[in-house]
Amino acid sequence: MMKLYFSPGSCAFATHLALEEAGASYEAIKLNFKTGEHLTDEYLAINPKGRVPALITSHGVLTETPALLVYIAQVFPESGLIPQGNPFLLAKIQEFNSFLASTVHVAHAHKLRGHRWADEQSSFDDMKRKAPETMHACYKLIEEEMIDGPWVMGETYTICDAYLYTISRWLAGDGVAVSDFPKVENHMKLMAKRPAVQKILPLHP
Amino acid sequence: MMKLYFSPGSCAFATHLALEEAGASYEAIKLNFKTGEHLTDEYLAINPKGRVPALITSHGVLTETPALLVYIAQVFPESGLIPQGNPFLLAKIQEFNSFLASTVHVAHAHKLRGHRWADEQSSFDDMKRKAPETMHACYKLIEEEMIDGPWVMGETYTICDAYLYTISRWLAGDGVAVSDFPKVENHMKLMAKRPAVQKILPLHP
Repeated sequence: MMKLYFSPGSCAFATHLALEEAGASYEAIKLNFKTGEHLTDEYLAINPKGRVPALITSHGVLTETPALLVYIAQVFPESGLIPQGNPFLLAKIQEFNSFLASTVHVAHAHKLRGHRWADEQSSFDDMKRKAPETMHACYKLIEEEMIDGPWVMGETYTICDAYLYTISRWLAGDGVAVSDFPKVENHMKLMAKRPAVQKILPLHP
Repeated sequence: MMKLYFSPGSCAFATHLALEEAGASYEAIKLNFKTGEHLTDEYLAINPKGRVPALITSHGVLTETPALLVYIAQVFPESGLIPQGNPFLLAKIQEFNSFLASTVHVAHAHKLRGHRWADEQSSFDDMKRKAPETMHACYKLIEEEMIDGPWVMGETYTICDAYLYTISRWLAGDGVAVSDFPKVENHMKLMAKRPAVQKILPLHP
């Protein structure tokens, strides 16, 4: 059985949701970042990056959300989480997920994790002040250029939807009004109704 | 024929190299960022993000390096740039590329592009001072945990190698001594000998 390491409300939510949507058999193991459970020798032996998500599979450990989402979709092809045999459509899905990982999640991280990239308190404060602006700019691009609707890729639910919803849940805390983005707002409403979301939400308050 | 938009020395080098290794038929179009060619209406209609790389294919435009690399490898399967029919190996390749895109490239970007995440000159200076430390930490993880050798995935050259080399070329300018990382240093030497690298290097001085 696969084991997913997660922390509540982190980006591991996307992988957790994909496992659930795929009907995978897995155990979800919660790490408490406040007590440093992600930095123990035991966990660093699993994921030397000290981050989540990490998924232990029968072949070995996997990390990084875009990689995990495609992996789950490929191992459970009957889930229909990615189109089969269409390199261009897969690339569009990957393009979207890569933007979330390397631009949107990174913009969000500057609100509380400025210490990754700077040393001074004044820099952390500056980054925190700017986070609402950068997150708003990211979601303006998503709204205007990337969501076909109702799902990210149009009529078909894919791994992009699990990942977008994960990050959209951070918007209110980042000082961004989701009502500025009607397609995203509708997407969040549709996502909240999915049984897989309702099942795992209690673990990600 | 595909069209690749690039700027010299940018991360578009990885996609450029993959096209070359795959034997693709393509036109490479240079954008001069200093004169704002990436922000013209014409280019923003191609890539609203105003970044490179962007690849015009017969199906539409693709962006984001991890997505482009898998796409090229899948469209040219005879290139052997990714393993066929092995979801776990593909996921390991994607895990590596995703780490480069969302952690290593981002660490590098703080040297000169702090304005993406902050507003004050003091913050930009702080980020610039820290960039050598964060890039060193990234490459320590790559050296110790991620490169099997001689190539990233072991005996077989993959898209990971094109991407790693792209970013390794930035190390000296980032104040990191590649000699601290013997596997990476050897990787750079092997890469520099490849005909595809030698062919495109004049466009990426």
